[in-house]
Amino acid sequence: MKTDTPLAEIAEVLRTRQRFAIMSHVRPDGDALGCTIAMALCLRQLGKDVVAWNEEGVLEKFHYLPGHEIVTQPPAEPQEVEVAIVLDTSVQDRIGRCLPAVKHADVWINIDHHVTNPRFGDLVHIDPSAPATGQILYELFRGCDLPLTYEMADNLYVAISTDTGSFQYSGTTARTYEIAAELIRAGVNVADLSRKMYENYPRRRLELLRALLNTLRFTSADRCASIALTQAVAAQLGALPEDNEGLIDHIRAIQGVQVAAFFEELPEGKVRLSLRSKDERFNASALCAQFGGGGHPLAAGARINGALAEVQEKVLSAIDHAITGN
Amino acid sequence: MKTDTPLAEIAEVLRTRQRFAIMSHVRPDGDALGCTIAMALCLRQLGKDVVAWNEEGVLEKFHYLPGHEIVTQPPAEPQEVEVAIVLDTSVQDRIGRCLPAVKHADVWINIDHHVTNPRFGDLVHIDPSAPATGQILYELFRGCDLPLTYEMADNLYVAISTDTGSFQYSGTTARTYEIAAELIRAGVNVADLSRKMYENYPRRRLELLRALLNTLRFTSADRCASIALTQAVAAQLGALPEDNEGLIDHIRAIQGVQVAAFFEELPEGKVRLSLRSKDERFNASALCAQFGGGGHPLAAGARINGALAEVQEKVLSAIDHAITGN
Repeated sequence: MKTDTPLAEIAEVLRTRQRFAIMSHVRPDGDALGCTIAMALCLRQLGKDVVAWNEEGVLEKFHYLPGHEIVTQPPAEPQEVEVAIVLDTSVQDRIGRCLPAVKHADVWINIDHHVTNPRFGDLVHIDPSAPATGQILYELFRGCDLPLTYEMADNLYVAISTDTGSFQYSGTTARTYEIAAELIRAGVNVADLSRKMYENYPRRRLELLRALLNTLRFTSADRCASIALTQAVAAQLGALPEDNEGLIDHIRAIQGVQVAAFFEELPEGKVRLSLRSKDERFNASALCAQFGGGGHPLAAGARINGALAEVQEKVLSAIDHAITGN
Repeated sequence: MKTDTPLAEIAEVLRTRQRFAIMSHVRPDGDALGCTIAMALCLRQLGKDVVAWNEEGVLEKFHYLPGHEIVTQPPAEPQEVEVAIVLDTSVQDRIGRCLPAVKHADVWINIDHHVTNPRFGDLVHIDPSAPATGQILYELFRGCDLPLTYEMADNLYVAISTDTGSFQYSGTTARTYEIAAELIRAGVNVADLSRKMYENYPRRRLELLRALLNTLRFTSADRCASIALTQAVAAQLGALPEDNEGLIDHIRAIQGVQVAAFFEELPEGKVRLSLRSKDERFNASALCAQFGGGGHPLAAGARINGALAEVQEKVLSAIDHAITGN
């Protein structure tokens, strides 16, 4: 198995090469976009030619990220790029339509914190002990004397805060809190940024929550709670895919619930499963792997072919088997 | 105005006196109970005679706090106590039925972070720059070489985390994050404690949320969102007073909402108002003061005489006046 490239060696490539493309996974979250933007801003400070792409560009709800304009959708044609940097992406093809645009890159750098990362690329640094890829980038920037501007600090803070559920999830360490303190000293306004991250969702999101609570279902002797969203209800509420994010946490938080599942009916006969486990007794990643998905032990997902009701029964039955052994 | 007593002087009293009673406000939150227990455990480490009281004892939802058994309801009769320590209590009579039990105390110590604290007591240390009273206690324990055990660290972490909305609210500084890091190094298990704080509520809390969302109302050109709970609905759901906590944050978080109000019908013709402001444009404390209440600029409350509908109209009208000047 390929060993980790030291961060100093990655920093050396950042300093000596000229043309970079930075990418992260489709359906990007705060860690993916925060890292993409922070890395792009760092390289610009170094005077590099930088493009930053995401298959979906930057959703409006992330427009509070300073420097977000730097991220565009990828061009259809292959580009002249020396170094392709892939951040927070557990499988290479999850960069989606960025892939053809960087097919001619000389060097691939893969920085991630997902333990399941298959270590694609030339320079690979995977640290599953980091609760967010943003934490690894902080160590890279600070540890290797790379630029760290106020705008970069904001992006890294968002990356870390969102991926740790506001500094709560397993994997959050004293070091994570120290890094947050240093980012605040570098200029982050905690209250302002927290409001933008956590207290600024559209009214329809609460309406969606109300609709989802009406589908709440308990299985496995109340140790599994699940909710479901049909395309019809989503259309009726005008719900956007990103409105769902975090809603599953409401049902995971119920006393006695070990695992929470969110079933979202997608077009073309598919269902998106999001799975959250409360603790190490239930491995969400292993369960999702049974359905071709993956992720972390406490948070994983899969896209599954089939009708909503059929997928629900299959998955809930697999969960029941995992919990009770039956 | 009475000046602040340096923490070192307070530490000296803790070291030299023998019989202490520790108290905090009625309807205690994580900061109130975490501080009460941490202080009690510290004094026990010093070999002191300690009682810790809260009018309501410790609600079941706080039974995860290590050492919570130390806190009892106050006795009806005055006790032989040298030093009364009041923590996180913005007005002296908010210690409720603890007051008669400590009427013979020689020395009153008042440690708090509420800017409106009238500085009652003999030794007073009010630091409105601290986002939680737990942060002041940390500085007291660490800065003055007092004991700081693992159990105390857990209690201080809960005090700080719950009073900052998981390290998000205005007032949270780099120092707050550094203290969290130090508490983690002292033994706090972040994920475990976070689950107990934020991911362990009874099923009826979600049912309550669903019911409250059905009362959601927008006023002041959608800049004010409010919800209401009647005694009838509370009884039907079997809701306990503590089930409400934090539910108001859901409506404060709606885009464009500046102020969120929660009206809770109480027995005997009273209504409990909880008010949350999104930023400095709206002063929740000033609004609540109009109705005999108080608190912080971003989070305040009041108990108001009157029928629910009548109180709603009065308060929403006052909010409208404050927002629009009409």
